[in-house]
Amino acid sequence: MIGQYDAQTKCLVALDSIIFGFDGEVLKILLVKRGIEETSTTWSLMGGWLRPEEDLDQAASRILKELTGLENIYLEQLYAFGAPDRDKISRTVSIVYFALINVVDYDERVSDKYEARWFELDKLPALLFDHGDMIKMAIDKLRYKAAQHPIGFELLPEKFTIPQLQKLYEAIFNTTFDKRNFSRKFLSTGLLKKLDEKQRGHSKKGAYYYQVDLEKYHSQFNSFLNFTRVNTNS
Amino acid sequence: MIGQYDAQTKCLVALDSIIFGFDGEVLKILLVKRGIEETSTTWSLMGGWLRPEEDLDQAASRILKELTGLENIYLEQLYAFGAPDRDKISRTVSIVYFALINVVDYDERVSDKYEARWFELDKLPALLFDHGDMIKMAIDKLRYKAAQHPIGFELLPEKFTIPQLQKLYEAIFNTTFDKRNFSRKFLSTGLLKKLDEKQRGHSKKGAYYYQVDLEKYHSQFNSFLNFTRVNTNS
Repeated sequence: MIGQYDAQTKCLVALDSIIFGFDGEVLKILLVKRGIEETSTTWSLMGGWLRPEEDLDQAASRILKELTGLENIYLEQLYAFGAPDRDKISRTVSIVYFALINVVDYDERVSDKYEARWFELDKLPALLFDHGDMIKMAIDKLRYKAAQHPIGFELLPEKFTIPQLQKLYEAIFNTTFDKRNFSRKFLSTGLLKKLDEKQRGHSKKGAYYYQVDLEKYHSQFNSFLNFTRVNTNS
Repeated sequence: MIGQYDAQTKCLVALDSIIFGFDGEVLKILLVKRGIEETSTTWSLMGGWLRPEEDLDQAASRILKELTGLENIYLEQLYAFGAPDRDKISRTVSIVYFALINVVDYDERVSDKYEARWFELDKLPALLFDHGDMIKMAIDKLRYKAAQHPIGFELLPEKFTIPQLQKLYEAIFNTTFDKRNFSRKFLSTGLLKKLDEKQRGHSKKGAYYYQVDLEKYHSQFNSFLNFTRVNTNS
């Protein structure tokens, strides 16, 4: 490779994962209480070191499992953080991953045995190193994606009501939307399939369950492309 | 941090940058002929090692300048590559950056003095390590972005004609679009400002120059968000 060999630096490589969870009301992040010292009360993302035999994805998954018990979670690489002084003890470049999960599905698995705990986005504790910046970037990415096209269905149960979907969007954007208009506009995307079944116990009338039409959902990811492609045939 | 200290591994960290350029006809990538040995004819991305005092962005910019003379190019971080065997000599994690530039503006600066050369996308030479995978991912990202909303204006001169814009889109997607429909649909986005000036010499009639309405352009990046936000007021 290129560059002065004597000017290069060997680094530790860390993997830090941000796990977003939605419990039907608020958006949360999973953190572990393990700082530099045993007595530390600093909270941290799901972090650990890269091992010689691993690639980056494998290491991120292995670390998440070790710290929380969570397996088979789709982790997406977000960004590499490498400020020279981000870890004062040893020069470390951190590759950050993130995942969206439905808290209810996974809550059992992360309790007790592990020191991991869910925190609401606006009630985060003191965080290790630049983990606050990492979380901020992940939230920005989540909002950017949700602004481009409907996302976040991973955060909901397989079947969900429109009020649940609205709560998720309100949690992501930290705002409120008008009920009737939110519902009307989301239904007009044609992405949701109405089921025959109603949710019971939340209101007298009950709200219908919906599912995402995954085929339509994935094709709409290329909306502008389709828009230009159509031109060649019209 | 977390993890068994004896299981960790120190790595070299490399920065590799993919420079996309458009010359008005085809999309190109800038490569340097510097492999592992002096005699090698392998071509490489703009790559080098991270130094102790640098953060990742600084290192990527410094390396690009050393190899090509190019300065003040906006480099966007793409992805970290870290397969254990990607560099056989020393374990290296590579952080990949990419940039879009207009070849005509920069051609003088990268010639002669440096070993960098532009290659057309479909005529790439043998590449070092996993640099082919890196380029493939960057092209996918470019296409994904261009499919979501109009992009790539960095690749064009400040004022450009609709045929130039169409050539860029055809180069990105490696396809052809119907002339009249492409023009009509792009104008209907309201993103382009028509200038009074015409391009001379390309056709009898001459094509009008356009500029991007940057304010509108940036606000449309949040199209779906605006779409949902509007609901609260309507």
